[in-house]
Amino acid sequence: MADSFKLISPLDFRYAKRELKEKAMRYLSEEAKIRYELEVEAAYIKALAEMHICPKEIVKEVEQASKSITAEHVQKEEEKTRHETKALVNCLKASVSERAKPFIHLGLTSCDVIDTANALRYKHFVTEALIPELRALEKLLIELALRHKATVQIGRTHGQHAEPITFGFALAEYVHRLGTRIVEIESKSNALHGKISGCVGAYNAIALFCRDAEKLEELTLKFLGLKPARYSTQIVPREPLTDFVHALISTMGVLANLADDFRHLQRSEIAEVAEFFASEQVGSSTMPHKRNPVAFENIKSFWKAFAPRMLTVYMDQISEHQRDLTNSASERFIPEILFACLYASHRTKNALAKLYVDEEAMLRNLKSASNKIVAEPLYILLALQGMPNAHEEIRRLALRAGNESLLELALKDKLLKKYLDNIPEEKLALLREPSRYTGFAERKTEKICGYWKKKLGL
Amino acid sequence: MADSFKLISPLDFRYAKRELKEKAMRYLSEEAKIRYELEVEAAYIKALAEMHICPKEIVKEVEQASKSITAEHVQKEEEKTRHETKALVNCLKASVSERAKPFIHLGLTSCDVIDTANALRYKHFVTEALIPELRALEKLLIELALRHKATVQIGRTHGQHAEPITFGFALAEYVHRLGTRIVEIESKSNALHGKISGCVGAYNAIALFCRDAEKLEELTLKFLGLKPARYSTQIVPREPLTDFVHALISTMGVLANLADDFRHLQRSEIAEVAEFFASEQVGSSTMPHKRNPVAFENIKSFWKAFAPRMLTVYMDQISEHQRDLTNSASERFIPEILFACLYASHRTKNALAKLYVDEEAMLRNLKSASNKIVAEPLYILLALQGMPNAHEEIRRLALRAGNESLLELALKDKLLKKYLDNIPEEKLALLREPSRYTGFAERKTEKICGYWKKKLGL
Amino acid sequence: MADSFKLISPLDFRYAKRELKEKAMRYLSEEAKIRYELEVEAAYIKALAEMHICPKEIVKEVEQASKSITAEHVQKEEEKTRHETKALVNCLKASVSERAKPFIHLGLTSCDVIDTANALRYKHFVTEALIPELRALEKLLIELALRHKATVQIGRTHGQHAEPITFGFALAEYVHRLGTRIVEIESKSNALHGKISGCVGAYNAIALFCRDAEKLEELTLKFLGLKPARYSTQIVPREPLTDFVHALISTMGVLANLADDFRHLQRSEIAEVAEFFASEQVGSSTMPHKRNPVAFENIKSFWKAFAPRMLTVYMDQISEHQRDLTNSASERFIPEILFACLYASHRTKNALAKLYVDEEAMLRNLKSASNKIVAEPLYILLALQGMPNAHEEIRRLALRAGNESLLELALKDKLLKKYLDNIPEEKLALLREPSRYTGFAERKTEKICGYWKKKLGL
Amino acid sequence: MADSFKLISPLDFRYAKRELKEKAMRYLSEEAKIRYELEVEAAYIKALAEMHICPKEIVKEVEQASKSITAEHVQKEEEKTRHETKALVNCLKASVSERAKPFIHLGLTSCDVIDTANALRYKHFVTEALIPELRALEKLLIELALRHKATVQIGRTHGQHAEPITFGFALAEYVHRLGTRIVEIESKSNALHGKISGCVGAYNAIALFCRDAEKLEELTLKFLGLKPARYSTQIVPREPLTDFVHALISTMGVLANLADDFRHLQRSEIAEVAEFFASEQVGSSTMPHKRNPVAFENIKSFWKAFAPRMLTVYMDQISEHQRDLTNSASERFIPEILFACLYASHRTKNALAKLYVDEEAMLRNLKSASNKIVAEPLYILLALQGMPNAHEEIRRLALRAGNESLLELALKDKLLKKYLDNIPEEKLALLREPSRYTGFAERKTEKICGYWKKKLGL
Repeated sequence: MADSFKLISPLDFRYAKRELKEKAMRYLSEEAKIRYELEVEAAYIKALAEMHICPKEIVKEVEQASKSITAEHVQKEEEKTRHETKALVNCLKASVSERAKPFIHLGLTSCDVIDTANALRYKHFVTEALIPELRALEKLLIELALRHKATVQIGRTHGQHAEPITFGFALAEYVHRLGTRIVEIESKSNALHGKISGCVGAYNAIALFCRDAEKLEELTLKFLGLKPARYSTQIVPREPLTDFVHALISTMGVLANLADDFRHLQRSEIAEVAEFFASEQVGSSTMPHKRNPVAFENIKSFWKAFAPRMLTVYMDQISEHQRDLTNSASERFIPEILFACLYASHRTKNALAKLYVDEEAMLRNLKSASNKIVAEPLYILLALQGMPNAHEEIRRLALRAGNESLLELALKDKLLKKYLDNIPEEKLALLREPSRYTGFAERKTEKICGYWKKKLGL
Repeated sequence: MADSFKLISPLDFRYAKRELKEKAMRYLSEEAKIRYELEVEAAYIKALAEMHICPKEIVKEVEQASKSITAEHVQKEEEKTRHETKALVNCLKASVSERAKPFIHLGLTSCDVIDTANALRYKHFVTEALIPELRALEKLLIELALRHKATVQIGRTHGQHAEPITFGFALAEYVHRLGTRIVEIESKSNALHGKISGCVGAYNAIALFCRDAEKLEELTLKFLGLKPARYSTQIVPREPLTDFVHALISTMGVLANLADDFRHLQRSEIAEVAEFFASEQVGSSTMPHKRNPVAFENIKSFWKAFAPRMLTVYMDQISEHQRDLTNSASERFIPEILFACLYASHRTKNALAKLYVDEEAMLRNLKSASNKIVAEPLYILLALQGMPNAHEEIRRLALRAGNESLLELALKDKLLKKYLDNIPEEKLALLREPSRYTGFAERKTEKICGYWKKKLGL
Repeated sequence: MADSFKLISPLDFRYAKRELKEKAMRYLSEEAKIRYELEVEAAYIKALAEMHICPKEIVKEVEQASKSITAEHVQKEEEKTRHETKALVNCLKASVSERAKPFIHLGLTSCDVIDTANALRYKHFVTEALIPELRALEKLLIELALRHKATVQIGRTHGQHAEPITFGFALAEYVHRLGTRIVEIESKSNALHGKISGCVGAYNAIALFCRDAEKLEELTLKFLGLKPARYSTQIVPREPLTDFVHALISTMGVLANLADDFRHLQRSEIAEVAEFFASEQVGSSTMPHKRNPVAFENIKSFWKAFAPRMLTVYMDQISEHQRDLTNSASERFIPEILFACLYASHRTKNALAKLYVDEEAMLRNLKSASNKIVAEPLYILLALQGMPNAHEEIRRLALRAGNESLLELALKDKLLKKYLDNIPEEKLALLREPSRYTGFAERKTEKICGYWKKKLGL
Repeated sequence: MADSFKLISPLDFRYAKRELKEKAMRYLSEEAKIRYELEVEAAYIKALAEMHICPKEIVKEVEQASKSITAEHVQKEEEKTRHETKALVNCLKASVSERAKPFIHLGLTSCDVIDTANALRYKHFVTEALIPELRALEKLLIELALRHKATVQIGRTHGQHAEPITFGFALAEYVHRLGTRIVEIESKSNALHGKISGCVGAYNAIALFCRDAEKLEELTLKFLGLKPARYSTQIVPREPLTDFVHALISTMGVLANLADDFRHLQRSEIAEVAEFFASEQVGSSTMPHKRNPVAFENIKSFWKAFAPRMLTVYMDQISEHQRDLTNSASERFIPEILFACLYASHRTKNALAKLYVDEEAMLRNLKSASNKIVAEPLYILLALQGMPNAHEEIRRLALRAGNESLLELALKDKLLKKYLDNIPEEKLALLREPSRYTGFAERKTEKICGYWKKKLGL
């Protein structure tokens, strides 16, 4: 037992709490690691029995033994062996009959067990914890987007007012991007495979007692719901893991982008959205009035903490010859990345669920930009009337526009007159009310939301 | 024209040379960038005409104009506009009739052109330059692996002699891993999409003259052989690009691993392989005898130079609201990553094509390990005879083994005797000749090579 | 000669132009590299002569020869030797008398020349190009800070209005942070040392003809204005280079932060500053009205492109035994980092030199925040009157403040009355005019500017 | 209390154990964080009293209160306030008299406390835990280097036999490099400063009751043994922290390089060193004979896990305006980096303390290289006789040398004869016994060890 205030890593004492802790530790803790490894050992015995290499009778006792061993047992044994898998094997052997003992771990190398167990628990984590969280977030995003599909907002590029969109359309960006990431995480976690091929991958030891070593491998993994890597050395090739972590990190990138957008929309001068603030919550220890976007700041911060770790994963792609062990510590930190992705998804969902949206502020900001917005449709309409250098003329006019509106200036301009006169009134009306100049924003929002709803069965 | 010795970047003056330069610059140079952008502008006119928005007659003249404009023209114009796409548009307008002028770039934003052109040239680069290079390398690896499928070699884990494999089996690792990367690069480059959706992605301007803006987008991209991003803001979402660069970086990781393996196999004490050395080539400016693995060192070094750039790509995933431009410089360096992957593949191929393989050295190293190798099969055979703690007993015996061989020690051991006596002679023979203890190495090599040959149509 | 439009790296065709190109290529180009290496070879001959190992007469001819050899000569020779230093040595030998030939490069290893030449040119680049640029930027920042030392601005934390500062005070942040980086770059470039210790660092070859090899090393380097690394293998230890690049990257980080601040201050809703916009300049190819913070975006983008390269430098810290060559390509890219730092400094200076500061907008934004600003001084003044939980009470009051001002609410509050009554009128006046609540902002600005002016002799 | 097997981070359950845990948690745990923050609050009261702002009588009670509050108290309060510093302040207020309450945290912002406390605990960690560990390691390295100063070993470049050195000389590399890092860590931890300047750095609130706010700041920090940052916003500038973490990461880089060297020296074919292996320790769960360099692999792995985190630190250099909070989570992980550096140092020390050095193997490997080693001294001696192209001739000869020794070949060569005849016998003797061709290896080892012994007072 550890005094949690004496922990050094903030992951456990600060972030992995309550429901998230419950969800995550079942797959990502040391205990989980050992539990999954024992499951692999048991599945191997089952496969040996199926192939008539060991007696069928011992399957049950090994299975039961594998369920009775705790992480604590193994850790104690490891203090002696200084080898974690050997410790686990010793514990297992000590819990079974003499008849079963010789078959425990027979012909396996540690990584047969470790790599397979990791693939399995990462997959389970994805299916049972991460994907449900991401789907809930996606669902919420779709609801929000649809609710605000017609809420006009000024579009911003370079931090400058550009042309109008709707808030729902802005949210649809994340519906789409997050949707693609859910698909990617699912696809790449499914590509995590196991291995049962011995210490250099050539089934050397297994070949001593089994003619179809690949069948034994396939069978063991089938019992676990996995497939074998097509080729392995002492370890499975690291590319699938690399792809998988990339899927997670790039998902966190999407969330970080969303967080940045909302941080800026909450700026005092913009104030189009606001994070929920509990009545007892304090924004600043000296400024009693402060309401800060702490959740979105935190989500961005998690991305900053975890994105660089991709480099560790790339470095661990390289393992000399049939493997070196310079990934001994570094890969143990991978469960932290998995947790970080869950955490960021969860926190985004919670922040959005209680988000305050100020439609009036959106309209106010849009209106303040009206004079400028008009430049684009104006030049387009002029060009459609055959004016060859409309963009250039309007750019020059915009430079002169001060208090007077660009539209008024244009209407007075002699050069433009002949083109303007031909523009149908309904089009000109748009120039007078730029909040209607939102293109297909609403329609596209519906389409994107519809697509992902169906695609993901939400 | 630039004096190439005055260049700062080593990429162009040192690495992008001769055939590689030829191959790469067609897609990756500034000139290529502009050429592709002009192609997008022309395709857009074609789509406008198809949809009866502009006269069909101007299609040809725009196409011709787009082919006549050079990078130099555009650069000169950019000095005035300080906006690269506007410069290109101006050049194009200046080359067409008054009738055509208004339709050039009508309703487009710069990124419609830039993002689409980049997707297109990256895809072409992959299809026409990178994949052919990688396939040639894969083919060579398969040939080498099959040639050496039975060449015995000691397997190494932790840099220590483990159990025997074959050199072909070691090469099959790279056949497989590189194979998966070829598939990944193809898949992720195919997912690079274009966009024609205007300055905030809502087709605002296009909607002024076109009722089915998405059809116009689709059509334009179809003419180029691309598909539209399902959703876009001012820019296409960055996840597909991120996935694509990840595929490249992880490919370079596989090559770096291969390079490391061969660097170490060339160590003076191991000396199982050697890079080709030209008769005039110098290994050291002071040690006339030196033969260094310079190609493999260089391949590793390219990986070190480029893997961290993934972080830049992750940072560029984040773009505020409908886009900010803090990717203005950083994304311009992406073609360097594409080139680096081509370079590393090319250099690996050349190094392997002339690789010297010393089968005798492999055998010698294997034999020097014989005494230890035997530990694993020995414990397995004992376990199969029902000995419950065979691993532990052999581990203890191995600690005692000095000059005497482990097998001899075992044969003298009283405790082991009763088990050893029951082991069939054919199995014991294996212990006496460990170079035969290669499991399914040969068979697996054939299988892997066969699989990838077929899968990739090599 | 290279067609610059056919270059792949954007560094040379896009960023290293005109004056920056001139400044940089003298130290960072391939030509510069070779020129500096020849200088090292010549200095070595001078030292050999000084120590009576070679005839004094040859010093001059070697010096002259070293000046006559061009990068092109060396490159041609390298095609034969495939070894760049040997090529250079061959060129040099071919240009001197028979008597001089044997002494050229005698006992040196390539890295004696390469590492020493790199240290020298990086130092020169820092002293002659980078530091002058950074000092000019620092000077400009000081001028701007002093000019605006009393220009009130609302301070922002979490993107939220916090308490008032002055714009000069905000600039003083960068005066200080950039000042510390100038000092750091100078200090760490001074710690770049050379080496003349042979192929494994033990002076093996030199010891054959020189009793005090360390003196020969010291002398050679003294002629160049360098010191020897206290210890070297085939190469100088990489820590000083690592520290130096860190100094550069962290300098770019300061500039990126400055750029971000100004990007956001230029947001349409904030609009306190604006980048200069040339009259012909175009902001958007479709929105004629756009004025974007392109310089600041670009500076941030350079940081994104280069910060991750620190990882490459860390990886190159590791070199097996007396050196491996897996830094062959990766370290060749270091001059790009040096250039990037120069570029970012230069561009920041130019953007700030023409910066438009809207003092009215600053005041307007500050006033819009007045109601909230008052919360902090109010609670402090109450606490100073002995109110035990002033922060908590004001926080509650702030939650209720809608249209009514917080100060008015407070004045009406019965609980607060007894404390408020005792606050001297001059303090209460501050609450009524929050733009005066800027603390020591002005004084601190002067102090910081004064300190750095003196420290750097600006 | 937390079940340690349910932790997700491997840092606490696997690496921070026993003595290391004890050493580290006093500075790096959540508890330590809060303890240090309370110390800052108390020091501030002391400074307020010293400047006659608050009554002297309350100093003692605040001090006592600050010592009585536990992390658990604060955490409970934080659940309500959702603001960690406000929670701490509330706890402190609740423990003091009504008279003291108003002065607690008066005019401070959270970061005054957090940034100052972090600077302090990081400095203490360095002085009291990390530096002692590094000094012990440095001392051990010096002992080992001196012990083996004359133990001949073949120098290796590119993994190839180069010229002879001594094993002590190879170790002296790390004596030197680690020495420079100790100095760097000390210097950069000393540059970590605190701040007491309020919510935007302009001392706004403090100025309400204190005329010399900078003096109050200085005094508070003096009580803690710190200095104020010359300039601060809501936070201290991040460059000193960045420099400090760089010093740590680059230290881990030196250790990773050392680890790589020893991993390779332990390769089966080289076998010049070996890690200690406990009698009960298991090398492989299937290969009973395996002895792996697990400690050195682990040290390298820690570097892989932590070096990329520098990027997070670089990203946290950037904080918008007077600060944003996107470092909220990311900077909480910094203590992990501090711990990792301690861990790697500790593990290196332990591995070296029990290192097995096989001097015979070193000699054997050196002798196997004799034939080649001779090439360098031979060409040097010939050049010294005036032979103009000695390197080239010997390079050609070396290409021909097969079974016959290079020296024999040379002696038979007609062209070389006239030069060889003039070489003094004592020099030729060196060619016959290359193990003496170690240059100044021994002398340099002594010098380096002497220098660092004195410099660090070891």
